[in-house]
Amino acid sequence: MENIRLENGKLYLLDQTQLPNREIYITPETKEDYFRAIQTLQVRGAPAIGIFAAYAMALLDGDKAEIKKYLDSARPTAVNLSWATQRMLSAYNEGRDLLKEALDIHNEDKLRCRRISEYGLSLLNDGDGILTHCNAGALATSQYGTGLGPLLLGKEKGYTFHAYVDETRPLLQGARLTSYELEKAEVDTTLICDNTAATLMKQGKINAVLVGADRIAANGDTANKIGTLNTAILAKHFNVPFYVLAPTSTIDYTLNSGEEIVIEERADNEIKTMWYKEPMAPGVTKCFNPAFDVTDAELITAIITEKGIIKNPDTEKMEKLK
Amino acid sequence: MENIRLENGKLYLLDQTQLPNREIYITPETKEDYFRAIQTLQVRGAPAIGIFAAYAMALLDGDKAEIKKYLDSARPTAVNLSWATQRMLSAYNEGRDLLKEALDIHNEDKLRCRRISEYGLSLLNDGDGILTHCNAGALATSQYGTGLGPLLLGKEKGYTFHAYVDETRPLLQGARLTSYELEKAEVDTTLICDNTAATLMKQGKINAVLVGADRIAANGDTANKIGTLNTAILAKHFNVPFYVLAPTSTIDYTLNSGEEIVIEERADNEIKTMWYKEPMAPGVTKCFNPAFDVTDAELITAIITEKGIIKNPDTEKMEKLK
Repeated sequence: MENIRLENGKLYLLDQTQLPNREIYITPETKEDYFRAIQTLQVRGAPAIGIFAAYAMALLDGDKAEIKKYLDSARPTAVNLSWATQRMLSAYNEGRDLLKEALDIHNEDKLRCRRISEYGLSLLNDGDGILTHCNAGALATSQYGTGLGPLLLGKEKGYTFHAYVDETRPLLQGARLTSYELEKAEVDTTLICDNTAATLMKQGKINAVLVGADRIAANGDTANKIGTLNTAILAKHFNVPFYVLAPTSTIDYTLNSGEEIVIEERADNEIKTMWYKEPMAPGVTKCFNPAFDVTDAELITAIITEKGIIKNPDTEKMEKLK
Repeated sequence: MENIRLENGKLYLLDQTQLPNREIYITPETKEDYFRAIQTLQVRGAPAIGIFAAYAMALLDGDKAEIKKYLDSARPTAVNLSWATQRMLSAYNEGRDLLKEALDIHNEDKLRCRRISEYGLSLLNDGDGILTHCNAGALATSQYGTGLGPLLLGKEKGYTFHAYVDETRPLLQGARLTSYELEKAEVDTTLICDNTAATLMKQGKINAVLVGADRIAANGDTANKIGTLNTAILAKHFNVPFYVLAPTSTIDYTLNSGEEIVIEERADNEIKTMWYKEPMAPGVTKCFNPAFDVTDAELITAIITEKGIIKNPDTEKMEKLK
């Protein structure tokens, strides 16, 4: 599955907001089309946004500096977005081939994901039951993804895995996106409510947990989708290996520990009304809806990057990835 | 709040299927009305079903033995239902006052819930943050409920608690029913996704976890709504007391341990389509949807019944509740 595809000079983007019910590729033409795709989450996942914006910079005519500024404003906090548009602007200023530069960015991500997937796969055994949380697959990156990479690469190599997919409330990325990706790849997939993870581990059905990461502190503490911490604590209780898979660009060495990671709080409607036919809680009830949580390094069996596997991560070991 | 109320010889039932959006009392008249209310979960929670069926036996004219048989078939596995109708049938055969017998059943439940609530409250401190899972309040029982009892009784006595309510996927009893009950009682309430429980404990906001029970084995292992085991493991990790509140009638001494408790598996639609505007996962994706899980006795700080508090429950201590 290719979520972002260049074909005869035209860019095709798989619209993630329509999944899993409708598989629609959009073909942005104007800079407003590209802006809207980023802002409305038709493309999501930091690497995927960067790749998409790089193609936009290559394909759009006009003042490249202005286009960069405009695209960056679609999601101001997405670091990969401004990183990719800056790299494209520099290539433009140096007179280099912009389409080649965008393809390079795309291919570099594929290579990183492939390496992460290979390292991850080396830790698994044929027949394993694997629990996933949120979505760290091809939709968020390119080709193999990070957290899902070992499952997808393993499938290609003839492994038989049993994937158990946390639905991942409130935004249901597991149900909507991970299930979709794994079914496309014909991996044996079972969707569960997040509440069922402990039961599966108790039954001995889970041999490893694979998750991605949004940001990793210098000591290995990892911010990822809300509920990742819960899963890591359950894994520790049941002696199940807990693996974080992410490119080294996710490591933020300016943060000494997870305590310094600022967690985004999101709106109540994601819990009470979004997706639903009618409200599922009283209107007056307040909600606490953090988008991410922080898993302490000591709960993480290994952090797997394109540069290798860091077992029992700590500041000293993480430093070597610089 | 009274979910079941007798007024001028007429029974009023708060229709739980309409909560939290519509507060509608139905007034069943025919035996078909009573049957439908039980079968379609307009009344749910084992004690509440028993109370409701007892009033039905008192108020319906006709062959009482046939009415009992008919009502029992509305939810064949609900033990409290046939227990209550049998007690009413015996009272009828012995020529006793049926309305008085039904009121006795109702009042006995209120008294049990009151005692459980008092014992539970004795373990809490003013200002505590309390995490709840599923719904074990007045809607499932009478008046105070079990798991919610200490919060509701505490409120009456002037305590200020901060309730954090797990939404409780897949059926959202926390979001729909517990939030509703706590808001009615004016307890400070914050609704969270089940995934956020670990973050709150890590932040030190949770001083105790209160849950009900569906069935307790002779050694203290407790079956309760799916996700209860997850919450108990998190509580242990963060050194938060984990309390199970239930009447002694919930203890099944024929089961030596939780391993003997049979867990009901429910339909995929509860995860993928129910409540939603459109399906939230691919149609082909299979689901694993157990309704309950089993929390090992060693994860339970205390089991609280109408007969007192059993700390660190085991077979020997549980035997004394007989």
